This record gives sequence, C-alpha cells and structure tokens, in this order.
Amino acid sequence: MRTDKPMTRQLIISVIGESNARPHIAALAEQVGRALAERDVAIVCGGLGGVMEAACRGAKSAGGTTIGILPGDNPLSGNDYIDIPIVTGLGYARNSVVVKTGSAVVAVGGAYGTLSEIGHALGDGIPVVGLETWEMTRSREPADSAIIRAFDPADAAEKAIAAAKQRLSDIAAGISTIPEIYDK
Amino acid sequence: MRTDKPMTRQLIISVIGESNARPHIAALAEQVGRALAERDVAIVCGGLGGVMEAACRGAKSAGGTTIGILPGDNPLSGNDYIDIPIVTGLGYARNSVVVKTGSAVVAVGGAYGTLSEIGHALGDGIPVVGLETWEMTRSREPADSAIIRAFDPADAAEKAIAAAKQRLSDIAAGISTIPEIYDK
Amino acid sequence: MRTDKPMTRQLIISVIGESNARPHIAALAEQVGRALAERDVAIVCGGLGGVMEAACRGAKSAGGTTIGILPGDNPLSGNDYIDIPIVTGLGYARNSVVVKTGSAVVAVGGAYGTLSEIGHALGDGIPVVGLETWEMTRSREPADSAIIRAFDPADAAEKAIAAAKQRLSDIAAGISTIPEIYDK
Amino acid sequence: MRTDKPMTRQLIISVIGESNARPHIAALAEQVGRALAERDVAIVCGGLGGVMEAACRGAKSAGGTTIGILPGDNPLSGNDYIDIPIVTGLGYARNSVVVKTGSAVVAVGGAYGTLSEIGHALGDGIPVVGLETWEMTRSREPADSAIIRAFDPADAAEKAIAAAKQRLSDIAAGISTIPEIYDK
Repeated sequence: MRTDKPMTRQLIISVIGESNARPHIAALAEQVGRALAERDVAIVCGGLGGVMEAACRGAKSAGGTTIGILPGDNPLSGNDYIDIPIVTGLGYARNSVVVKTGSAVVAVGGAYGTLSEIGHALGDGIPVVGLETWEMTRSREPADSAIIRAFDPADAAEKAIAAAKQRLSDIAAGISTIPEIYDK
Repeated sequence: MRTDKPMTRQLIISVIGESNARPHIAALAEQVGRALAERDVAIVCGGLGGVMEAACRGAKSAGGTTIGILPGDNPLSGNDYIDIPIVTGLGYARNSVVVKTGSAVVAVGGAYGTLSEIGHALGDGIPVVGLETWEMTRSREPADSAIIRAFDPADAAEKAIAAAKQRLSDIAAGISTIPEIYDK
Repeated sequence: MRTDKPMTRQLIISVIGESNARPHIAALAEQVGRALAERDVAIVCGGLGGVMEAACRGAKSAGGTTIGILPGDNPLSGNDYIDIPIVTGLGYARNSVVVKTGSAVVAVGGAYGTLSEIGHALGDGIPVVGLETWEMTRSREPADSAIIRAFDPADAAEKAIAAAKQRLSDIAAGISTIPEIYDK
Repeated sequence: MRTDKPMTRQLIISVIGESNARPHIAALAEQVGRALAERDVAIVCGGLGGVMEAACRGAKSAGGTTIGILPGDNPLSGNDYIDIPIVTGLGYARNSVVVKTGSAVVAVGGAYGTLSEIGHALGDGIPVVGLETWEMTRSREPADSAIIRAFDPADAAEKAIAAAKQRLSDIAAGISTIPEIYDK
C-alpha cells in the first residue's frame, strides 16, 4: 500500500467541542464550520449535537461536506447536517477516531469528552487550534502551550488549515510529527 | 438526538473482500462498485487493496463516492480511489466499523478478515449479499442461509440496495433487526 | 519496551462460543474451562452468558483464573464466575480483544459473534481449536482446514495449549504467525 | 445478564501517567502501586513503561495483582511486572479501556495520553485522584475541580478506594455517575 499519496484528496479538519453547547460557543462553532467550508475544507466531528451540530450547520450553509463519527449503532442517528455518518458502535472510544480523521483539529469550548480528544490529538502530533477551549498545566510547570490559540472563527480556520498542510507535508516527507512529551 | 432521521442521506453500502484479490474476484468487485455507484449508492470499505481498491475504482468510474475505513494512523494512506479516508488507528478492530457504516454489505470473495466482517454484520442484523464468498455450517446443522447469494454484480447491487432500504425502514419503525441466533 | 519477555506469565487461552448456549454445548464449554484450569491455564472470554459463563464456571471449579472482556460500561456486569472484568465500552468490537488476549482460542459451538472471533483469530495467526463449531468453505474451494478439530474437551485443551506454546515460541523467535490468505 | 453483581470481586483501580517518567514521578507511582496492593486492590494500567511500570513494580512488591491493557498485538510485550496482559491491538484508543476497567483512577504526573485518559474518566463519571498531574481550566471559568487532589501516595490510594466504593454503590443502586458537563 502506498503511504505517499499525493495530496489530491480534499482536506479534512476535525471540529470538536461540547454537546450541550452554551449559546456563544454554538455561535462560534457555526462560524468555524462555515469558515472551513468556504475554504473548501470538509469537516469531521462526533456527529451529535451542540458544537458538532452547529459546526455542521455552518459548513452546510456554505455548501461544505460533513462527516459524523457516531458512537452508536444506528445509521439513522446523528444531527440533521451530517452528510456521511460513520457508524462505529464504539461508544466514546470513537473520540480518537474523530481527531485522527482530521489533519488538524479546531476545539471550540468543550467539556470532558473534548478534553479526551485534545489529549489524543496532541499525543498523536495532530495540531489543535483552540477557541475558548481548555487550558491546561502540569503541576509545577508553566501552562502548556501546545494548543494554538485563535482570535476568532476565521483565524481558527486559517491557522488549522496552515497547520494541517504542514503536518501532511511532514508525513509525506517521512518526518515524525509525534511530540516528545507524549506518554503512551 | 433524533434517531428517526428521514432517509434523505445518500444510501451507503459496504463492499468487503480479500486484499490479495484473485483476478476474477477483483473483476467482480470492480463491477459491484460500478453497479452501486450507477444506482446512486456511496460505498464504504476497509480502504486498502484488492477487493477494496477494485470496488472503489469501479465506483469512481461511475462518479460515485468512496469511503475508506483505514486501520492505521496515516491520513495519506489507503488506495488511490478513496475520497474520504477515515483514520481509525484501531487495527483490524476497524472491521466492525466497516460493516456498521453500510446499511447492507456485499461480500466478494474474501479471506479471514472478510469472515470476521460477515460475522459482525450478521450478528448485528445487517444484511449480507455474497458473490463467491464464504459459506459456513455449524456442526450437525444444514448450511447457514443467512448470506443472500447473488448471481452477478448487478444482482448483488440490487439485492443489497433492496435489503438496505428494508433494514432502514425497520430501524425507523423501531423493528429490531437483530437475528435470534446472534451470540454476544 | 521489551518484546521478548521470557514466558514466565501464566498461559491465557480464549474460550469463545454462543451466549444462548444449547445444553450440550454448555456442557462441553464447562468441561473445556475445567480442563484448561486443571492444566494451570487462565481463561479469557467475552464475560457474558452461555458458553462464556459455562467455561468460567468450569474453570472456577478447578481453581482457575477467569478474565471477562465486557462489551459494556458497567464494572458490576458479567457472569458470576468472572474474576477480572475488563470494561471496554466498545460493544462487540471487543470481540477482537477477546481473541488477541488468548495465545490460542477454543471455539465451542457458536453463532455469528463467534464467527467474527474465528475470523479475527485466524487472520491474526492465532490458533483456533474447534469443538462442534463453525465449518466454512470459500466458493469453489475445499473446506477450510484452518480450525484444528478436537474430539472432546480434554483434547481441545491439550491441542490449544500445544498450539499456544508453539505460537509464543514463534513470536519470541521473531517468526511471523500471520497466514498467507489473511485479507486486511 | 445481571448488572447488580454483589461486590465480591476484588476492587480494581487504574493508575495512569507518563511513560517517560521523570524520576520523582516514577517514585510516586511506585508508592501508589504499593499502597493500593497493601490495601488489597488490584491495579490496571496501560502496560508499558514509566509510571505504568513503576506502579506495577510497587504493586508486586506488596504481592498485588497487575493488569496491563496493551496497545499492540504482542502477548509477550508489556513491562516485566504485568501479571495479566490484555492484548487489544487498538493503539491508544485503548486508553478508554484502561480507565473504564478501574472503579476509580489515580493519575500520577502525566503527558498527553494521560490527559486523554483523564478526559475519558471524568466524562464517564469515574473518579480521578491526582498526584502532581494535569490541572485544567475552561476559558473564562475558574479552574476545574473535578480531579480529587491527593497529598501523597497513601492519601491517593485511600481517596481512590473511598471514591471507587462510593461509585460502585451508586451503580448498584442505579444512581447515574455521569456528571452534567460531559459532552459526548
């Protein structure tokens, strides 16, 4: 199998965040989805409500493509703006599939599921761009700076696209993108 | 979350089979992919070579959409005819995701990975249509008749589409599609 | 990480089979569990009823150790004879974990979940010993002979232990145990 | 299947943390493993090095039982102090299995994999006790207080055991342990 596929496939970026979205967070997520679709990027998310639904609605408003990685077994489930439902049956272990399927991640708000996704992404060397999301610190150390902070949805989309393209170039060139502090 | 989504999404059908495909099996798989795409069905497969690649090539020759559920971590991997790579990192545990994502399954030829997928699909009540694939018997019983046998690729596509539509109707109507003999 | 661990750990063998067990199948499974425990082998299974419960009951009657790989999220679930419940939350994708955790597999009876496990095991090169279980044939070929047939529970235990030891030796020696026909 | 199993099984608690452990973190982890084993608790971890190995070494020094949920396919892998290797083949998606298998979690130090495990555990309502581990804050909110802070290894063991027993009681009583802010 080739692993040096020319980058002719459409870029895919994950949008992650809370399912019971606070209103200002849902508004940001919708704008992120729209901004990505306007830049010809497909989005992948966990397929459910809140940030996931808002991002898909935004993407569809600009004619984008939306992929939902569903935790359950029902192909008819997921929010109304999902084009392509992936039915995993894995429960929330599907969170790692959500972030791996994107070449970069945008985190908008978020609760504990989002925190697990941020951990999986950073551990895999997948760039994470954050908008009003988690900040974290290890005991006795300065705040972790691995999440790329964005100022607004357009900035988040642009930073995520740039980081995704860099990562795909690195992978194509055989350069590892796994950071030093990842603990397995 | 709604689980009674109107069936406005495109139908998705899984195509499964051996990765080191014997030539007549690859030819059948290509025709199955083409026949499904001609009937406006998207296909999902394991994303790699052999039957998976042939089915995707056939689908693309008719302008279809192809989804690859990849076992590894590399978004640049998968065969050249995959539109939407889903990067699972799950190894061959991804086989259950391949069959769950289709509303029905077409098995063409196949080796042991395909056998695992047939088991997962039948256990979940997902219809399996077979073309020159596994036949199985439990000790002391007549041959298992759960796999719907097809005569040629067009017949396989049509039987799979009919079975998929019936299953989605049953799910929407709240009718269980899990067969009695499934052992968990 | 070392991958050449001396074989000082207790041998673990998977017992798989139907959850709604026909009585003669449950009786065989209980004897298999007992025969393995008498030979100082721990057993792993899917943790639920039928063959799984019977095998665990048999193992405990001989003072053995029992591991249950549970599909759900509840650490208090599983049959009454499980010593060590592994809580996966993965649904029936946990089937591949059941077979990988054993160094060989004994299949007793079985329905479609068992068929998926046989496929995963054979694809991984994990030996499968069968007692009144599935037999399968690929179209136009003679019956597949990959499953090692056993005559009775003691024979199944002995054949599984011999095959497990051979496989661990091969792994320690760096010899691949993956068969040629596995399709990924 | 019964889900109201009397709590006669041995208590299992997860120990998570960085695989490239800083020395003071490894020392803490070893003491946590020992403290849990002295209180008759089995430990489960990711099976590899660093905090995982130190915790297992500590547990074995007090005669405890150790379970390793391995990411790979090799039953001979894992650290030297693992009694029961669970071979998942799931890569780091196995992180959610590590935390679900414990009735509570002790996090010692940690890098991004640990962060994903903390997210999975808190999202599932599994209590997390922390020793020099991550602290996190959502934008514009006070620091998240979901992680129970411990002063030393014995305190961590005792707090984790108390929280695990409370959680199992709640589950047996049918009381949900899923917190309000979990986003799926």
